Amino acid sequence: MNGRKAKIAVVGAGAFGTALANVAAAGGGDVTLIGRNGDAMAEMQRTRRNEKALPGIPLAPTLACTADVEAVRDAGIVLFVMPSQAQRESARFLAERLAPDAAVIVCAKGMEKTTGRLLTDVVEEELPGHEIAVLSGPGFAADIARGLPTAMVLAARTAGIAARLAQALSGPTFRLYPSTDRIGVQLGGALKNVLAIACGIVEGAGLGDSARAALISRGLAELGRFVAAHGGDAATVAGLSGLGDLVLTATSHQSRNLRFGITLGRDGTANGSGDLVEGAFAASVAARVAAEKGIDMPITDAVARIIDGTLDVKTAIGWLMTRPITQE
Amino acid sequence: MNGRKAKIAVVGAGAFGTALANVAAAGGGDVTLIGRNGDAMAEMQRTRRNEKALPGIPLAPTLACTADVEAVRDAGIVLFVMPSQAQRESARFLAERLAPDAAVIVCAKGMEKTTGRLLTDVVEEELPGHEIAVLSGPGFAADIARGLPTAMVLAARTAGIAARLAQALSGPTFRLYPSTDRIGVQLGGALKNVLAIACGIVEGAGLGDSARAALISRGLAELGRFVAAHGGDAATVAGLSGLGDLVLTATSHQSRNLRFGITLGRDGTANGSGDLVEGAFAASVAARVAAEKGIDMPITDAVARIIDGTLDVKTAIGWLMTRPITQE
Repeated sequence: MNGRKAKIAVVGAGAFGTALANVAAAGGGDVTLIGRNGDAMAEMQRTRRNEKALPGIPLAPTLACTADVEAVRDAGIVLFVMPSQAQRESARFLAERLAPDAAVIVCAKGMEKTTGRLLTDVVEEELPGHEIAVLSGPGFAADIARGLPTAMVLAARTAGIAARLAQALSGPTFRLYPSTDRIGVQLGGALKNVLAIACGIVEGAGLGDSARAALISRGLAELGRFVAAHGGDAATVAGLSGLGDLVLTATSHQSRNLRFGITLGRDGTANGSGDLVEGAFAASVAARVAAEKGIDMPITDAVARIIDGTLDVKTAIGWLMTRPITQE
Repeated sequence: MNGRKAKIAVVGAGAFGTALANVAAAGGGDVTLIGRNGDAMAEMQRTRRNEKALPGIPLAPTLACTADVEAVRDAGIVLFVMPSQAQRESARFLAERLAPDAAVIVCAKGMEKTTGRLLTDVVEEELPGHEIAVLSGPGFAADIARGLPTAMVLAARTAGIAARLAQALSGPTFRLYPSTDRIGVQLGGALKNVLAIACGIVEGAGLGDSARAALISRGLAELGRFVAAHGGDAATVAGLSGLGDLVLTATSHQSRNLRFGITLGRDGTANGSGDLVEGAFAASVAARVAAEKGIDMPITDAVARIIDGTLDVKTAIGWLMTRPITQE
């Protein structure tokens, strides 16, 4: 696989997939966007718009749009932009069609719900022998597609592969930083949703901006401990895929996790709506794993308990504020 | 000095000084708040309010308010809550009055403008033999005073002193994390203003939330490099006094630095108003020092040049987005 000249296939033509395909094509890449709906893809190819997902944003003239999944066959780089829980099935479906030396980039956040595993591990299981990388960090599809300046992170097994893939997808408005910490990048991307819920709780309960800032700082500190305990680099969570993504999530009201937290903080109860947000699942998994492994994660633990109804917000705050103080 | 039982004097009865004194008194400390205006202090002592600085917020019944500076004499812990540029003069004025074993906590952010030095160094110069600590991090005076949950950092020469001072000032709603990195804490507190200006520029120029999130991540990375080059710990900037304070500054419109940046981003010019904001000074000092020492600080450099009119916002973004990409 040659990262510079490889053909790029983007599987998944929602807002994020279209945005990534568009920016890579605009940056000079030979890019094909593959979606499931034949009519929709034909219309995108003709009108140079994905009006449903990215209204009003023109697509690069060179971007090819198709519903023919066989188009992945000659791609050296394949972006998996399906939802988290569809990554395994899609990998299995594509296994026979991928070029033997194709590198796969997972472009979804979260963990597999049935196993709690990282998505790169899930995809690697289905596609042994392929390089499996992951793209994460703070990037709204509309910002990326519109050509607003965006920086994200691309983590692969080696620095060389990461640099090659990052280079292949970067353009004048889209900057990918290479990393070799697939674990830290993915755990950051999944667990920032827990902190986004926590930020929502703070907002909904009217606890003030200072409390939110403290929560973000201390939340990232415990997230770093979790990453280190899983073989990743604690410093990764202070980068684009942890801190950066959290800032984006926690300070713009586009996030479902944040809005879920606001409701929790205001009403004091989840009313079962937590089933719908990634962060609620991540909180329960992370709190359980942290307890098992003895990792100190008071904020994650409090969020998990508030969601499952065994702790109320006011008690949680009192408890968080009066724990023994350690070094920062 | 015994941190647990020491009397506490807070010098400076503005919003922040009053808030710190109030929360320490509410937490059970023996606290005297010392202000310059005799009438105002007498009124505070009588009405249990600092109506001018913290309207509507009741003061703890045990908090003593006075204009008599001699009250510092029997304090074991003295908080210096004067403006940054008044710290040296105040230290000189108080030198003869402080108990020999009094610990001083600098509660101001920024550097001394005439020398570019850290405030703990400035105060230490005037008060040789005293322990000089620093309090920093994300805390709005009104949030602290109102008893909303707040966490900040207290850095001293040794872990033991930091823990003792943190304990003496902490209360059920105000949590101080001890640190031994006075350099990192102070540089974080000063330079986050540069990044706040940068966030304002991004907002004013309409570059989107993704760009702001990337800027914060990459800005903290370069701030970490600056701290490490000055003998501090790069990781400190990912904590309360760097990241936490920046989040607070950059996401609430109370900050003058942020508002200055918004004007810059919108109008493309500083119009001389940069003289008024801390971050403009910090940007020019840091950019010069970074150039001298060979520290890679592209964002700080761009902010300094945009402020002094030698770079326009659009060119700066193009330049930042097309620099060679390094590892995250």
